[in-house]
Amino acid sequence: MKINVTVWNEYVHERTEEAIGQVYPHGLHTAIAEGLAMDDELEIRTATLDQPEQGLPQSVLDTTDVLFWWGHKAHDQVDDELVERIARRVRDGMGIVVLHSGHYSKVFRRLMGTGCRSKWWELDDKERIFTVLPGHPIAAGIPESFTLPVEETYCEHFDIPTPDELVFLSWFSGGGVLRSGCCYHYGNGKIFYFQPGHEAYPTYYDATIRQILRNAAHWAAPNGNPPMTYGQHDRFEN
Amino acid sequence: MKINVTVWNEYVHERTEEAIGQVYPHGLHTAIAEGLAMDDELEIRTATLDQPEQGLPQSVLDTTDVLFWWGHKAHDQVDDELVERIARRVRDGMGIVVLHSGHYSKVFRRLMGTGCRSKWWELDDKERIFTVLPGHPIAAGIPESFTLPVEETYCEHFDIPTPDELVFLSWFSGGGVLRSGCCYHYGNGKIFYFQPGHEAYPTYYDATIRQILRNAAHWAAPNGNPPMTYGQHDRFEN
Amino acid sequence: MKINVTVWNEYVHERTEEAIGQVYPHGLHTAIAEGLAMDDELEIRTATLDQPEQGLPQSVLDTTDVLFWWGHKAHDQVDDELVERIARRVRDGMGIVVLHSGHYSKVFRRLMGTGCRSKWWELDDKERIFTVLPGHPIAAGIPESFTLPVEETYCEHFDIPTPDELVFLSWFSGGGVLRSGCCYHYGNGKIFYFQPGHEAYPTYYDATIRQILRNAAHWAAPNGNPPMTYGQHDRFEN
Amino acid sequence: MKINVTVWNEYVHERTEEAIGQVYPHGLHTAIAEGLAMDDELEIRTATLDQPEQGLPQSVLDTTDVLFWWGHKAHDQVDDELVERIARRVRDGMGIVVLHSGHYSKVFRRLMGTGCRSKWWELDDKERIFTVLPGHPIAAGIPESFTLPVEETYCEHFDIPTPDELVFLSWFSGGGVLRSGCCYHYGNGKIFYFQPGHEAYPTYYDATIRQILRNAAHWAAPNGNPPMTYGQHDRFEN
Repeated sequence: MKINVTVWNEYVHERTEEAIGQVYPHGLHTAIAEGLAMDDELEIRTATLDQPEQGLPQSVLDTTDVLFWWGHKAHDQVDDELVERIARRVRDGMGIVVLHSGHYSKVFRRLMGTGCRSKWWELDDKERIFTVLPGHPIAAGIPESFTLPVEETYCEHFDIPTPDELVFLSWFSGGGVLRSGCCYHYGNGKIFYFQPGHEAYPTYYDATIRQILRNAAHWAAPNGNPPMTYGQHDRFEN
Repeated sequence: MKINVTVWNEYVHERTEEAIGQVYPHGLHTAIAEGLAMDDELEIRTATLDQPEQGLPQSVLDTTDVLFWWGHKAHDQVDDELVERIARRVRDGMGIVVLHSGHYSKVFRRLMGTGCRSKWWELDDKERIFTVLPGHPIAAGIPESFTLPVEETYCEHFDIPTPDELVFLSWFSGGGVLRSGCCYHYGNGKIFYFQPGHEAYPTYYDATIRQILRNAAHWAAPNGNPPMTYGQHDRFEN
Repeated sequence: MKINVTVWNEYVHERTEEAIGQVYPHGLHTAIAEGLAMDDELEIRTATLDQPEQGLPQSVLDTTDVLFWWGHKAHDQVDDELVERIARRVRDGMGIVVLHSGHYSKVFRRLMGTGCRSKWWELDDKERIFTVLPGHPIAAGIPESFTLPVEETYCEHFDIPTPDELVFLSWFSGGGVLRSGCCYHYGNGKIFYFQPGHEAYPTYYDATIRQILRNAAHWAAPNGNPPMTYGQHDRFEN
Repeated sequence: MKINVTVWNEYVHERTEEAIGQVYPHGLHTAIAEGLAMDDELEIRTATLDQPEQGLPQSVLDTTDVLFWWGHKAHDQVDDELVERIARRVRDGMGIVVLHSGHYSKVFRRLMGTGCRSKWWELDDKERIFTVLPGHPIAAGIPESFTLPVEETYCEHFDIPTPDELVFLSWFSGGGVLRSGCCYHYGNGKIFYFQPGHEAYPTYYDATIRQILRNAAHWAAPNGNPPMTYGQHDRFEN
């Protein structure tokens, strides 16, 4: 059965900064979607902030199994009400993969409860990503470590809750480390945060990064369970 | 060095329902505070919703090491801005111990990010509390298991993030289980959720419960570290 | 691609105690295997202690993706060297599902490092199993809670390491609770411990239990990664 | 009340390699003990492999609240029976702080159950240690990050169970990262693994390292609970 993936992108940098537009001429979402589309089991749509209902009307959310989220400049423009609708969908089973600067999006902060900030610098550091949980589905086919020749550095302290599963750790040439691949359960849903993916660098064309994103789509897909029920209840029969 | 504890209570049930007022004639906060005051290292204040600034002006928060929180009927009346001030203080090191129906308070839901609901029934169930982490500071002096003759049942599924440390599990005679003693790190601060403490029952006079609350005050106390710093940073010298 | 499952059973109770033999006339392993075989993606073999090399020559281990383990009376008869071979295979990617009294098997204690004991009684308690992580692959298709009319009670404290993922919690009518469905990563491999399955009760014919075991086989299957490498290494190129 | 600490060292490098002897003329244990002794609440003894009963007769173990362990060359010489006695003491409440190359000691591997290996190189890398859990007792007084000018590099993948609490992460100039400060509960006892401390470098004279070790002694100290009881039990009264 196909997994319905929606790749959401604010789509601002690529259209307002020429250098970024040259790296991602059709938008970050298109590059991300291309990498995902290499997997026949994934059915891909994209959505952007400038579309009606910010690209995510309820009908789209309701038919999305896994939502990918890239945002940065326009975090504040995302409707609070959309954030709540996404959180409910995650609680009820939808997966969400939050990418790079999405760590400071309204939706990630809403899901995590914490500040979600880190130290950062944008100085063309090399990043080396280490697999911490080699048996995890998101690590399938990923080497013990691999490098990205340039990435924006995000560095601890990273103000997130303790990950349920820490899949990747990153080393940066400028002296930083980060818990860069973090899994969380959230009600019936699952959340994966993955740090690489700065808009100025061709990270989303990297074959290993693309493999991780495909793996993440599979891992985050709903398991089909209905939402849990809460509230007043009778005693169970003993 | 003394630990400054503030016990906050909405203080509604005890003044509006005669049966509750008979169990806690001076309010739940007073019974909780009495149990804490048996420990000379704890310096106790109480605060209630009906006080100016809902009992927690910034000057009180700033001098509170550990905040105990009991709320139920009046969750909605707590100012959103107070909730944010509390969350910031926890991030910066203040401990918070959230009690019983406080699981659905604005502040706990804000800190957790999740819905924080459970199943529940109020049918005079017996509760048996099991120690899962016997070496944990909050379990010091607590037996392998102990019972409360009557408690309100809270039952899984409990919609919380995976606890960093699960200290207690509860069994209820009506057929339920709950992760009833849950620890979380939150920035520099620490959070402990503890389920027993229904307003209609004399739980806060129980010696073992009181020991757990004293232990929790010590565990949740700040370790003195300054808040972490975030944002743009230079490379480290390598 | 098929997942190769080997169901290992000491196969002692069923042949030495008439009452047990009536519940599982072809052995516990056969009942377990029947439940697994309902899934076309699982390729099932069984193995028993009385076979050459205790049923698990290296050639069998090397072609096993997921090993199910049921043992009780004969824990001590399992060769230490076999235990080490199993541990190496788990480290290198094989999944293992340890069932019921297997908690005290040599292999589970070897993998966990802890004592792995609990309290227990065999008094025809009812067991009610609650799903704690409803979005987990092992919980797919499993209700919020379900009951087994009779099971042996295992009760906290359960001397295991903190589970990486706690999928199920159990309530017992005789007053106990247990972390009854526990996941661990172990090198490239994955471990699932699941408590129900006393030899005197028809637990392995239960449809929900069988679904959980099928789910566990999928979850525990290797992700195909080669074993990690350790030891002296050059600096990475920076 | 004083915490009784025993610092155990195999004490081999310092007496067989002149360069090491110059860094630690009275042995690593003495330097470690000196750092701990700055805290009046810690009562310090040392023990070495060459002493009767390998320095740890049962009478010493029974009066030790927290055991520090430094070993490397002589792992194999440690009696298996001593390892079992230590594991039992940890299960029953004794804390253990395993240092540096102690990751591959018999006792750490016994407690963890896993292989406990990592990649490593000894090329005078700089190490930068980041605090991941700033509110943790072991992080009290420790900055957001600090450096050791030279350390032996231990690099992921580190074959350990998922830490219950990951307090520190390390960056190495040669391109590695490590989960370098890891906490575990183990029955009534607590375990802290801390990676810095190569015999050729003056790490144990570093003020921040010494603070961490003092903090670890406090964190790992027993909470006074008696050992948990296991085995056949009556139903609880309901």
